[in-house]
Amino acid sequence: MTSAETSVPPSLRTRVRRVAQRGQYDRVTLHALLDEAYVCHVAFADEHGVHCIPTACWREGDYLYIHGSNGSRMLKLAGSGAQFCVTVTHLDGLVLARSAFNHSMNYRSAVIYGVFEAVPDDHKSAALDVFLEGIAPGRSKEVRPGNAKELAATTVLRVALNEAACKVRTGGPKDDEEDMGLAVWAGVLPMGLSPLAPVVDEAAARIGAPDYVRQWQAVAADRVGEEA
Amino acid sequence: MTSAETSVPPSLRTRVRRVAQRGQYDRVTLHALLDEAYVCHVAFADEHGVHCIPTACWREGDYLYIHGSNGSRMLKLAGSGAQFCVTVTHLDGLVLARSAFNHSMNYRSAVIYGVFEAVPDDHKSAALDVFLEGIAPGRSKEVRPGNAKELAATTVLRVALNEAACKVRTGGPKDDEEDMGLAVWAGVLPMGLSPLAPVVDEAAARIGAPDYVRQWQAVAADRVGEEA
Repeated sequence: MTSAETSVPPSLRTRVRRVAQRGQYDRVTLHALLDEAYVCHVAFADEHGVHCIPTACWREGDYLYIHGSNGSRMLKLAGSGAQFCVTVTHLDGLVLARSAFNHSMNYRSAVIYGVFEAVPDDHKSAALDVFLEGIAPGRSKEVRPGNAKELAATTVLRVALNEAACKVRTGGPKDDEEDMGLAVWAGVLPMGLSPLAPVVDEAAARIGAPDYVRQWQAVAADRVGEEA
Repeated sequence: MTSAETSVPPSLRTRVRRVAQRGQYDRVTLHALLDEAYVCHVAFADEHGVHCIPTACWREGDYLYIHGSNGSRMLKLAGSGAQFCVTVTHLDGLVLARSAFNHSMNYRSAVIYGVFEAVPDDHKSAALDVFLEGIAPGRSKEVRPGNAKELAATTVLRVALNEAACKVRTGGPKDDEEDMGLAVWAGVLPMGLSPLAPVVDEAAARIGAPDYVRQWQAVAADRVGEEA
C-alpha cells in the first residue's frame, strides 16, 4: 500500500497542536482504536446550541457507523448533511508524577470530522449484522433477524474516516529533573474496560451459552473467583 | 432538603425525549455518575465547526471542573463565555435480546449545558487538590505542590450543574412477546472500567507504595493472580 492509503493527512482541524507528538495519523492506529470501542460521542449544533450525545458505533472499512430510531432528532440532523464531530476515547491509566503539575493520564482518542450519509434501505440489514457480529461473533445467525417494519423504523448512518486523527499518551510520568530525588511513589495506575460475569435472562436459563458468552464468562471469572 | 435542592428540573435541552423513562433529574444520580468519571467529553463550536474533545474532569459541590494549559484553544474559548455541552458516559453492559432489533446497551450518561467560569488564581491550587485527592486520597500532601509558575500556566474552569440531566438504562433485554419462545441465549454481558496492576516508575522502586496504590493493586490482583 502507498502512504496515502495507510495514513490520513492531518487537516486544519485534526492536526494535534497541544503536545503535538501525541498526534497519530495512520489508519492502523485509527482502525484499532475504533474497533475497540462500543460507544462514541457525537457532537453537533442545532438551533438550541451544541450537543454531545453518546451512542453505539462500529467500523467497517473506512467508515464509522451509528444507528437508531428514525424519530431521533440527532439522527434526523445527521441525515440532513449537517457537520458532525465524532470522538472515541479509551482511558488506559492514571499517571502519578512526583509533582502535582506533572500528573497525567494515559489514553487513546480519535476525533472524526465529517458529514453522515444514510445507508440505503437494502444495505441496512447487512450493516447492522456487522455491528452485532463485532460484539458477538455468530449471533446474527442465531437471533430473529430484523423484519421489514423494524428495519424501516431504523436509521443507519456512516461517516467517512477522511478527516480523522488520533491522540495517544502511553508510558510513565515525565517528571522535572529536580523532582527526581523526592521520596514520592511515582508510576502508572492502569485501567481497562473489563468483562464482568454474564447475567442470563431467567427465561433463557435452560439455553446453553454460546461461545462468545462463555468467553466473556472466562475473562470475568478471574474477578469472581477471587471474590468468592 | 427541598425538592428544588435535590433535583434539577429538565430544560428544553435536557429533557430526555427518546425512551423518556430513562431520564433522571435528581442530583444524587448526577453527582454519583460524575464522581465515578475520570474523563468527560466537551463539545463546543468555533469558526471551524463543532468539536468534541475528551478531557479530565472532577466534581465539587454543584460544579464540574476541567483544567489544562493556558495555551489550549478549547480552554481559551471556554473561558470566553461560549456555550458548551459536557457529557460523561459509563458503559455498563451489552444487552443481548432474542431479536436483532431489541439488542441494547446498559449505560449511565450525564449531559450538562452551560458556560464555564474561570476559577480565580488564589483558588486554583485548592481546586486542583480536590481533583488529585479524588484520584489518590492523601497524595496532594505527598507530592511537590504546584509552584507559582506552574499554577500561572494552568487554567481551571468550572460549569454549574444547573442545566443537566442523566439518562440511564439498566436490566435485561426487553423482547417482544412472540420472540420469548425462541431458543436464543438472552441476557446481559456486563462490563466496567477496572484497575490493572500498577506499574512503578523504575526510579521510585525503593519507595513504599501508598495506600491508594496498594488498594489498586489488590483489586487488579484478582486478574493477575488467575492469569499467572
